[in-house]
Amino acid sequence: MQKVKPSLLRGFDQEYLPREQLQFDALVAIIRRNFERCGFLPLETPSAERREVLTSKGGAEKEIYALTRLAEADDDEAAAKGALRFDLTVPLARYVAMHERELAFPFRRYQIQRVWRGETPQARKGRFREFYQCDIDIIGRERLSTLAEAEIPSVIYSVFREMDIGEFRIRINNRKVLRGILESFRVPGDKAPEVLRWLDKHEKEERATILAGLRKEGVEAADALYDLIAAKGGLDAIARLPQNEALATGLEEAKQVIEAMRKFGVPDAAFAFDLGVVRGLDYYTGTIYETTLVQHPDVGSICSGGRYDDLASYFTDTRLPGVGISIGLTRLFAKLRDAGLLREPARTPAEVLVTAMDPKHLDRYIAIARSLREAGINTELYLEPAKLGKQLEYADRKGFRVALIAGETEFGKNVVQVKNLATKAAEECAPDRLVAHLKAVLQLKDS
Amino acid sequence: MQKVKPSLLRGFDQEYLPREQLQFDALVAIIRRNFERCGFLPLETPSAERREVLTSKGGAEKEIYALTRLAEADDDEAAAKGALRFDLTVPLARYVAMHERELAFPFRRYQIQRVWRGETPQARKGRFREFYQCDIDIIGRERLSTLAEAEIPSVIYSVFREMDIGEFRIRINNRKVLRGILESFRVPGDKAPEVLRWLDKHEKEERATILAGLRKEGVEAADALYDLIAAKGGLDAIARLPQNEALATGLEEAKQVIEAMRKFGVPDAAFAFDLGVVRGLDYYTGTIYETTLVQHPDVGSICSGGRYDDLASYFTDTRLPGVGISIGLTRLFAKLRDAGLLREPARTPAEVLVTAMDPKHLDRYIAIARSLREAGINTELYLEPAKLGKQLEYADRKGFRVALIAGETEFGKNVVQVKNLATKAAEECAPDRLVAHLKAVLQLKDS
Repeated sequence: MQKVKPSLLRGFDQEYLPREQLQFDALVAIIRRNFERCGFLPLETPSAERREVLTSKGGAEKEIYALTRLAEADDDEAAAKGALRFDLTVPLARYVAMHERELAFPFRRYQIQRVWRGETPQARKGRFREFYQCDIDIIGRERLSTLAEAEIPSVIYSVFREMDIGEFRIRINNRKVLRGILESFRVPGDKAPEVLRWLDKHEKEERATILAGLRKEGVEAADALYDLIAAKGGLDAIARLPQNEALATGLEEAKQVIEAMRKFGVPDAAFAFDLGVVRGLDYYTGTIYETTLVQHPDVGSICSGGRYDDLASYFTDTRLPGVGISIGLTRLFAKLRDAGLLREPARTPAEVLVTAMDPKHLDRYIAIARSLREAGINTELYLEPAKLGKQLEYADRKGFRVALIAGETEFGKNVVQVKNLATKAAEECAPDRLVAHLKAVLQLKDS
Repeated sequence: MQKVKPSLLRGFDQEYLPREQLQFDALVAIIRRNFERCGFLPLETPSAERREVLTSKGGAEKEIYALTRLAEADDDEAAAKGALRFDLTVPLARYVAMHERELAFPFRRYQIQRVWRGETPQARKGRFREFYQCDIDIIGRERLSTLAEAEIPSVIYSVFREMDIGEFRIRINNRKVLRGILESFRVPGDKAPEVLRWLDKHEKEERATILAGLRKEGVEAADALYDLIAAKGGLDAIARLPQNEALATGLEEAKQVIEAMRKFGVPDAAFAFDLGVVRGLDYYTGTIYETTLVQHPDVGSICSGGRYDDLASYFTDTRLPGVGISIGLTRLFAKLRDAGLLREPARTPAEVLVTAMDPKHLDRYIAIARSLREAGINTELYLEPAKLGKQLEYADRKGFRVALIAGETEFGKNVVQVKNLATKAAEECAPDRLVAHLKAVLQLKDS
């Protein structure tokens, strides 16, 4: 038979071996648990949306994947008008506008789903065409307290602390501060979005490239502006600048947010005000966030977001101010793996393997496996006739923590051998004490 | 500003309000927990695969969604050669063939992901174009014990029992039995796949339609064959048939599987041998499964699958026999919701709302929320300045179980009011006993 080569599409190639998938799932579980702990409700939206919904904000067309049918088909709206979402913010805006009357505001939602972007994939940089985003947003109706801007980083702090990925820093800045700075540099309001997009690249692009970009936008003191941003100054750097109203408002807001962040439990070592945080997106209006690994600055921002004044202006007249942040999990995972920062998952589906040494006793093996499962212990029974050595080899490959072994001798003494696969030590245990014994060995809580 | 109407694409429209999403997630959690309890490892594969991989088995082209770019783009392999998966079995076959040397066999994996099919959407029948499948498979290399065919339904039994969705029945049949029956009806081997596809429709299509189909395939005693299948006979019905080798082998296999199913813990009331189970797919070779809700037969099969002899013959020469089953969760959820069979989730992200009655005490409200979160209690703090009544209305709408209320009077007495939002009863509690008190009220285990 003519074979098809089993392989993946470039950029759609983040697929893990079982052990990696367990590590990935452990990160998802941490993210989900911390999001829920802070009262965020889960949301999932369809992968494909109307093209006009996705492109409503403009600027995203060139990265969007549209749907089509492989064979011709009549009456397929998705193929005629649909495309895959490129982020989780546009679907959130569409969802909130659609369900405005059914939602309670402030609406707090989290969303952990894949998005698709036709960027040039670069595995080394962790850039893929299909990847997970993990978003939280707090959406108010007509108004939203700046307290929300302080709570968001406290959620992120608890996530990364529990992930145990080394020292990290939530770097914050404020768009009003940046507007005030642009004002003092006499950048006209309509040039501000483009100027901010250039400044946002200061960590990735050469100084000369950015300066040329700034000058093209008509910034006269491009050098001074660049140097101010690239110096990554703190609150004190703002105080030394020529003052104006936007700057004063921004500074006041930043101070309030920082004070509240501390109350929400973010320690000073885990965050910093940083003028170098700019964010490319036009629609941020207040606090903006980026998060970096202190020991691995090359990884770039692992979690970014900010405050915006109107989420869904393209869909509804209701003003929906909000604040949100997003973890690019596929990229973060690739980077943590490359940097050796992934932990072994605390509990894997592969805890206990019941070996089947002697087919004569199959019923007893099944009964043991069943009793362990009923007690909440993740248990597999080796189903194939095979030598014990082969069964134990399988246990090692799959990463079981314990193997149970019993044959004529053991059943004659009414015991089962419990073999710890890490230490290779074996001890005997009576069948009726097995559940308690294994729970102790595996450090499981009673359920 | 010109608004875009926020709406969804036909068939890509299964999106839930927060309470429904919580119910959906609760089902996913049950499925995942039971799959892991039986030693299945998690797997996720990319949404898009090479078209040649997806179409390798043939027959699926007409339902497949391909990818294209909304704007023109160079060098995009996914747009040129990619399409969305229509099931989780083909990606599994591709994955196992690709990673054969890195996997331990028997390879047990579970996969809970979305698939996309260009079928005509019918919300009433629970048929959508984007939906979740939840699959488990056990894949052997070169051989696989029939015990695996008995273990699979035991996993499914534990899933549906925990879902608490009323009486259900795992109906099994055996493809060797069906082959034996076709043989006794003198159906030539090459006609068998088409004849089985017709018989598979006996619950959905008119008798006359099926009979016409069978006759077109050259079945002489079409009436007798139809009646035999439609009568849904048990093992005893097979014994009354003219015997042949395939039938005898199939019957023996079915008896073994049934005996082992009982040992794996499936009670007799939860399963039945049923000649009416046929399954349309050609590649099944042993036990086949369908699962129905006894009180809601109109819902159709909520979980189907079977034993196959070679998973990945299109990708590798290694023979990979396996057995698998799939829950169509999006459809099941729609049906359970329509039938009123969904439970309230036991624990929601919205457990405790800390109200903020008096802005003067904001720091204390933040401190309370923080201490509850640190103790593992899902807690939200009301961040907006608003009257207490409005805050409690929000708590009711979002479905919180408890609201904490405190102002000048309470803080003066060093207590907090704990209001049970279901019973409306309120009691006072000292701040330092709050965690223990709330854990008791919410019936949370210590973590």
